[in-house]
Amino acid sequence: MKKLINDPADVVAESLRGLAIAHPELRVDHPNRVVFRGDAPVRGKVGIVSGGGSGHEPMHGGFVGVGMLDAACAGEVFTSPVPDQMVAATTGVDGGAGVLHLVKNYTGDVMNFEMAAELVAAESGTEVVSVVVDDDVAVQDSLYTAGRRGVGATVLAEKIAGAAAEQGRPLTEVAELARTVNARSRSMGVALTSCTVPSAGTPTFDLPEGEMEVGIGIHGEPGRRRVPVAPAREVAEMLLEPVLADLDYTGGDGALVFLNGMGGTPLIELYLMFGEVVQVLEKAGVQVARSLVGSYMTSLEMAGCSVTLLRVDDDLLRLWDAPVRTPALRWGV
Amino acid sequence: MKKLINDPADVVAESLRGLAIAHPELRVDHPNRVVFRGDAPVRGKVGIVSGGGSGHEPMHGGFVGVGMLDAACAGEVFTSPVPDQMVAATTGVDGGAGVLHLVKNYTGDVMNFEMAAELVAAESGTEVVSVVVDDDVAVQDSLYTAGRRGVGATVLAEKIAGAAAEQGRPLTEVAELARTVNARSRSMGVALTSCTVPSAGTPTFDLPEGEMEVGIGIHGEPGRRRVPVAPAREVAEMLLEPVLADLDYTGGDGALVFLNGMGGTPLIELYLMFGEVVQVLEKAGVQVARSLVGSYMTSLEMAGCSVTLLRVDDDLLRLWDAPVRTPALRWGV
Repeated sequence: MKKLINDPADVVAESLRGLAIAHPELRVDHPNRVVFRGDAPVRGKVGIVSGGGSGHEPMHGGFVGVGMLDAACAGEVFTSPVPDQMVAATTGVDGGAGVLHLVKNYTGDVMNFEMAAELVAAESGTEVVSVVVDDDVAVQDSLYTAGRRGVGATVLAEKIAGAAAEQGRPLTEVAELARTVNARSRSMGVALTSCTVPSAGTPTFDLPEGEMEVGIGIHGEPGRRRVPVAPAREVAEMLLEPVLADLDYTGGDGALVFLNGMGGTPLIELYLMFGEVVQVLEKAGVQVARSLVGSYMTSLEMAGCSVTLLRVDDDLLRLWDAPVRTPALRWGV
Repeated sequence: MKKLINDPADVVAESLRGLAIAHPELRVDHPNRVVFRGDAPVRGKVGIVSGGGSGHEPMHGGFVGVGMLDAACAGEVFTSPVPDQMVAATTGVDGGAGVLHLVKNYTGDVMNFEMAAELVAAESGTEVVSVVVDDDVAVQDSLYTAGRRGVGATVLAEKIAGAAAEQGRPLTEVAELARTVNARSRSMGVALTSCTVPSAGTPTFDLPEGEMEVGIGIHGEPGRRRVPVAPAREVAEMLLEPVLADLDYTGGDGALVFLNGMGGTPLIELYLMFGEVVQVLEKAGVQVARSLVGSYMTSLEMAGCSVTLLRVDDDLLRLWDAPVRTPALRWGV
């Protein structure tokens, strides 16, 4: 295992220490491993909390800031945060207008966020609404999931719900927007290499030279099938075929296209893949309304990518375009 | 070789195609492989052109936009662009106030930019000033370089000179600022793995399990020495010792600290490394005035990082903080 770390047991805590210094506009609660907006709680604004296992950076800590998340809980690598962390995050962002939990659909995350919501309600009466994201069309159930896994749509839901909360919309509306983003999004990924969890020290799975895993999960969970490594234009077709089959594009709405790198794939390849994805979409008659290309939801140093399509309307586009100021996404401010 | 590409010969052209779609605010001259600001040439503003081999994305195309570069020339992977590309870039950004060439110190780049400047002067009379960046303390000469190599300071020079040009400062002053940034910057990098140039198909060099290359170049050129993989805190000391030895910090100026990922290193490790770098700097009495953490000057999928220190003053800080709107760096607008 070759990594820029010290003791594998300290990776998350030490990475958060660096994040806190690099981004003084954030406030990191180190004992609870929660990244907060510096000005949290924002009075009268719906607070938005997300979180999950570490190893997916910049998700979620890199999405904390104006126009996106109010707090993010960092679990151990590929392991759900515990309810106490989520309680600290929720009470810390409660500005009196309620709190939205944005939860990726993994069994541990869902269970722990549920428990945290109950604890908070019992202790303080804070209203919490949870929205579970499950946009991955690759598999119906998986190693860590009942139902579909939550992947790229999480980033889009955090941005769009975050913009709505920043505008002062009420909790029911912010939550409904997050549900809408999830309902209108589909994703699929591919891995060219495995990744190595620091505490394990060896690759999560074995992927021989010349093969790739189509439908990979963000923790290296098995996908749909192993196939020989194919040209990018064929990979784009493999990823988009099941996405388009599951998403109704007959209404003429455009797509927000999110081409995400898994961590170990260089940007030169991501832009190339994005070009191929757009060609497939053009053939399918889907218009690209907005795009996001980069490594935003990673699996440590895994090589590969995922594609997420969100069927947008004017309200979603305005919220996507609204100002955001976080370490990883920043525009308009 | 596992890459998300089609034919290795088409990687640069196809990646630029994707970049152009993802960033409609830019204008890509595909035959010349030049990325322009959409509004170039900007009347009365000094134009800034950079460029170099591809494979270092987001450098340089990802730094084109308001407050940074006016154009970037993309060579083949790890190969200098040719003078014709640089001529197209230079004439395309000439708004009547002259053009600055920001050139990394590699033999091919320096030679071709010189030739382009002569061609432009002869053809159109456009005034061109070149500033060569050579901030890498690792080796005195190398495989592709007479003198020190140009690495991380390039990003800082592009940002700071870009801000000065945006403010309307004259060519002599913009060029002098770029020279100042270079003179006050030092860098050093480390590789944990090699990278594979698509057209070669095999790793550029061999780096056995358990070893790392200290002082690596961004094309995989040999560094100072091979050593066993060490904890991050020791890596931070190895990188900073020669940087601090070569940079006069007695005046009490703070540092802009740029912790750069080589492409295959995940962000969780980069933040962790940044925390270690800051600890070493604190011991050395160097105050962190600003920071930048991320994969901005990569070597394809190489795992590793580099540290760049820039000794800042108030003017440099103001120019660093000035608005920038490019695909890879964006704030204040």
